[in-house]
Amino acid sequence: MNLNPKVEVCLSPQLLNLYDISDKVVVVIDVLRATSTICTALHYGVNSVIPVSSVKDCLNYKDTPNHILAAERDAETPYGFEYSNSPRNYMNDAIKGKTLVLTTTNGTKLLHEVIQAKEIVIGAFVNIAALSNYLLSQDKDVLLACAAWKGRVNMEDSLFAGGVISHIKSKFNIFCDSGKMLSDLYNQIQPNLYNYHLNASHHQRLVNLGAAEDFKYCFQENIAPVVPVLIGNKLVIHSAS
Amino acid sequence: MNLNPKVEVCLSPQLLNLYDISDKVVVVIDVLRATSTICTALHYGVNSVIPVSSVKDCLNYKDTPNHILAAERDAETPYGFEYSNSPRNYMNDAIKGKTLVLTTTNGTKLLHEVIQAKEIVIGAFVNIAALSNYLLSQDKDVLLACAAWKGRVNMEDSLFAGGVISHIKSKFNIFCDSGKMLSDLYNQIQPNLYNYHLNASHHQRLVNLGAAEDFKYCFQENIAPVVPVLIGNKLVIHSAS
Repeated sequence: MNLNPKVEVCLSPQLLNLYDISDKVVVVIDVLRATSTICTALHYGVNSVIPVSSVKDCLNYKDTPNHILAAERDAETPYGFEYSNSPRNYMNDAIKGKTLVLTTTNGTKLLHEVIQAKEIVIGAFVNIAALSNYLLSQDKDVLLACAAWKGRVNMEDSLFAGGVISHIKSKFNIFCDSGKMLSDLYNQIQPNLYNYHLNASHHQRLVNLGAAEDFKYCFQENIAPVVPVLIGNKLVIHSAS
Repeated sequence: MNLNPKVEVCLSPQLLNLYDISDKVVVVIDVLRATSTICTALHYGVNSVIPVSSVKDCLNYKDTPNHILAAERDAETPYGFEYSNSPRNYMNDAIKGKTLVLTTTNGTKLLHEVIQAKEIVIGAFVNIAALSNYLLSQDKDVLLACAAWKGRVNMEDSLFAGGVISHIKSKFNIFCDSGKMLSDLYNQIQPNLYNYHLNASHHQRLVNLGAAEDFKYCFQENIAPVVPVLIGNKLVIHSAS
């Protein structure tokens, strides 16, 4: 009998009803770009990130001291926002010690959809090893939840889930077929993570928006090695990471 | 501009709402075992298959001359049915010229969920080349619709979709990320299709039911080379196949 904890992959928010998350650590995954941005902002010195569902909720923080506001809808920055969903927005001293209030099309929406989870953490290629080590240390059942694109399964979130499984599988029971397939595909393509993703549907969308550099950044593993966890309504760096 | 028709993969019936099927050829895929069984029964001489949603609908044909009735729920045969969802049930002379009325947990259910499609055809590894050649000859947009297991993405239906894409991609525009990933994974594992699927979640379920031979059969490519198409309420062999 295999007593290891279970790991499963949910490829689209539309499949979340198939999983009981109340006793699981849920990893929220939106590689392009919300979860890469959250890791990066925290790594570069933002002290916490408040994920909100709507642009309106985000604007409610407009006059709150020490808060910076960022929004994205359909990969673009709505009018009036100083900060965007680009990780490269946060690689500077101006953001240090600030609280980032962030709303995005898929990533922060998913985060609110899994709010009943036992614990919520954030994953992207930029923190893959740190996140995987954290999951190994917890010894709890895990759901890898992909933000996808408006319900549609996407390459980058799926393959990231496969990558995490590759890292943790010696101590976890892979409890779904998609996890097994994606772990094998990740192992096959990992040396060429960036080149492989040039085929992703989101690639052209970001290039058209002038975000080709963001795209490249998001496939560099372990350059923002923090583990963001949700405490109350804020994402903060897990203290041991 | 790429004027080739599009091919997309829907990994679970719960994602069907994301696709407009009214102008598409929909391939219904339930490798273990409904669509393997449908191809096999037609190949061995059943003259048509009537897919029905419920056990009750199936029993309505009980006294109809020349009809044989088969049912499956949760991989088992309900009490009172002479025929099951095993392809090996149909490799004999007794079924020749009969009409098979069939209801299964996932496969025939999906077929009724895509009834608005422009055209419905049936796919499984046992007919992969014949089906792919048919799609190439049609030059129409295609949705590869996986039956999955009670909503959950499964290995055998997903990898079959990847296999079809591998066969047809020179003349189709792969319009989704999952199709690209699955085509690559299929190419990697194809020489060992059966062995790879020993990891599938459905494997142990079928072995426990004494259906290990069925499992093996369903991963043999092109041994039932027919193309079942839905005409009215009946699946029949496409006349050119």
